[in-house]
Amino acid sequence: MTHSFSTLSEFRALLAAAPGADADAMAGAAARNGQLTKPPGALGRLEDLAIWFAGWQGTDRPRCERPQVLVFAGNHGVVAQGVSAFPAEVTVQMVANFRAGGAAINQLSRAFGAEMAVHALELERPTKDFTTGPAMTEAEVVAALRTGWEAVNPAADVLVTGEMGIGNTTPAAALAAALFGGDPSGWVGRGTGVDDAGLARKADAVTRGLALHAGALGDPLEVLRCLGGRELAAMAGAIARARVERVPVVLDGFICTASAAVLERAVPGALDHCVAGHVSAEGGHSRLLAALGKAPLLDLGLRLGEGSGAALALGIVKGALACHSGMATFAEAGVSGA
Amino acid sequence: MTHSFSTLSEFRALLAAAPGADADAMAGAAARNGQLTKPPGALGRLEDLAIWFAGWQGTDRPRCERPQVLVFAGNHGVVAQGVSAFPAEVTVQMVANFRAGGAAINQLSRAFGAEMAVHALELERPTKDFTTGPAMTEAEVVAALRTGWEAVNPAADVLVTGEMGIGNTTPAAALAAALFGGDPSGWVGRGTGVDDAGLARKADAVTRGLALHAGALGDPLEVLRCLGGRELAAMAGAIARARVERVPVVLDGFICTASAAVLERAVPGALDHCVAGHVSAEGGHSRLLAALGKAPLLDLGLRLGEGSGAALALGIVKGALACHSGMATFAEAGVSGA
Repeated sequence: MTHSFSTLSEFRALLAAAPGADADAMAGAAARNGQLTKPPGALGRLEDLAIWFAGWQGTDRPRCERPQVLVFAGNHGVVAQGVSAFPAEVTVQMVANFRAGGAAINQLSRAFGAEMAVHALELERPTKDFTTGPAMTEAEVVAALRTGWEAVNPAADVLVTGEMGIGNTTPAAALAAALFGGDPSGWVGRGTGVDDAGLARKADAVTRGLALHAGALGDPLEVLRCLGGRELAAMAGAIARARVERVPVVLDGFICTASAAVLERAVPGALDHCVAGHVSAEGGHSRLLAALGKAPLLDLGLRLGEGSGAALALGIVKGALACHSGMATFAEAGVSGA
Repeated sequence: MTHSFSTLSEFRALLAAAPGADADAMAGAAARNGQLTKPPGALGRLEDLAIWFAGWQGTDRPRCERPQVLVFAGNHGVVAQGVSAFPAEVTVQMVANFRAGGAAINQLSRAFGAEMAVHALELERPTKDFTTGPAMTEAEVVAALRTGWEAVNPAADVLVTGEMGIGNTTPAAALAAALFGGDPSGWVGRGTGVDDAGLARKADAVTRGLALHAGALGDPLEVLRCLGGRELAAMAGAIARARVERVPVVLDGFICTASAAVLERAVPGALDHCVAGHVSAEGGHSRLLAALGKAPLLDLGLRLGEGSGAALALGIVKGALACHSGMATFAEAGVSGA
């Protein structure tokens, strides 16, 4: 590991020093795009996507042959506030399902040729209930960030990060509210399917959490420590590492995007290597994407997590890059121009 | 060939006699969907799509392992009216590009494991300019319908039909206007990139075509004959054959959808086996989909034709069916319910 960190401050410094996209590769890809056998602009957003991938992969012929999917799992003290429709033991049960290959993310990873790994983060030791104290110590949040950081394969040509953690739409809503402001009730949603009373309990827990940690809300990494969770921090760590390695990232739903938003608020530009895979049905996701200036590739009403919406969007990425890097030019094909 | 036809009337009768979806398979798939390891409804539209595919494939575990992509090419007398930004010789050049593997549809077919074939329909003999007479005789339109009909592989688990034909957004707009009414200027668009003057010529050509063939507009198959084109008729023939064989179809953009709409107007329910792969950037496509009651899977600003938007949507279909048919149930995985 050439880069590493043992404090939040060192983590921030590594992220702030990350290089940008390769402008020459983007210019080369844009020039190639203009010569391909199609009317100008006829592949719509696929063209922009291919040129954007070119910049992050540093080549005018980007590829989607080695996607990596990382799923992080954690448990949450805040479930004591009655914020989830499922019992907390489902987290460990679903980790077993991921390992056995039975979950949605397994099928999607296989369908698009992605290498998938699952990292369970101390499931037997939930984070502290953020309505009664900080969710994590600095050592704990740094350990979770490092789990994500170290899980990234720098040779991957695209990264998807997903999560599993009963109760985790509540810390995600708390992050969004802390980072972007607004009434907590506008950031909470039904998650795996809570009723109206559960929804009210979620908004109440977020409100109390924000009040308790008011002194920490000025620092996005402290927000993550006080209101987040281990799998949320691990996703942030992985997305940060991808930024440093210039591996493009496809963002998943509300929880993934809230974790990623911590990075953007800590270091503006930290998510320049991220495209929004989809907009989920979870309340607050479209608002969060708008706050980040990210337009989703898909809008199919998903709200599963696990990285599933982003993994599904790998199909769009594969299509875009296959066209860009595989098509003949007008000259190669002997086709007349407009 | 057990079913065939030599007149438009016989074609209509075969289409009208086609069987519907398998209700038992759909019920089985819906029951399975309710037991999969995810919160109810969390895969959004992917769940509906899988159950719908189950009905047409006649199994509770539908697959997307043998997709078929058929591209039909034709030339159009109406190009004499100055309706395209590209010269007519591009049609034959692009057919050569399809055969050499250099076009967008080749890359997308390969990316999603589809078997692709190209059928060029008498490119050296364009249809008649519909502003001066019927585009085709009955024998010509029946021959084109049969080309499409016979090209379908009944063992395919999903079909995409695409087209190439310089000038063919104009006959497509004429079909849409004839079938659904409204001002022709609301159905024409920029196609491969005509300027404002070209756009006005398109609207004018459609207006004159509708006036000339006013007596034929009551019969959708006569509309296809008088105002359509060979590749449009071939797509309609392929989609009709798929209906008879219960092969589900993913519709492409404006031209494909206009061709398909002929079938629905001729025999209500004829497109029950079709899902809209995307909504294109071509003027009129979203309006046409709304008239048919079809919600697109993708909205990425494509306007290429060739079947490209539908082929891209095969990625969504693959993902949906992989989840539905491959995921573990709560009982299999030992996961607690809500």
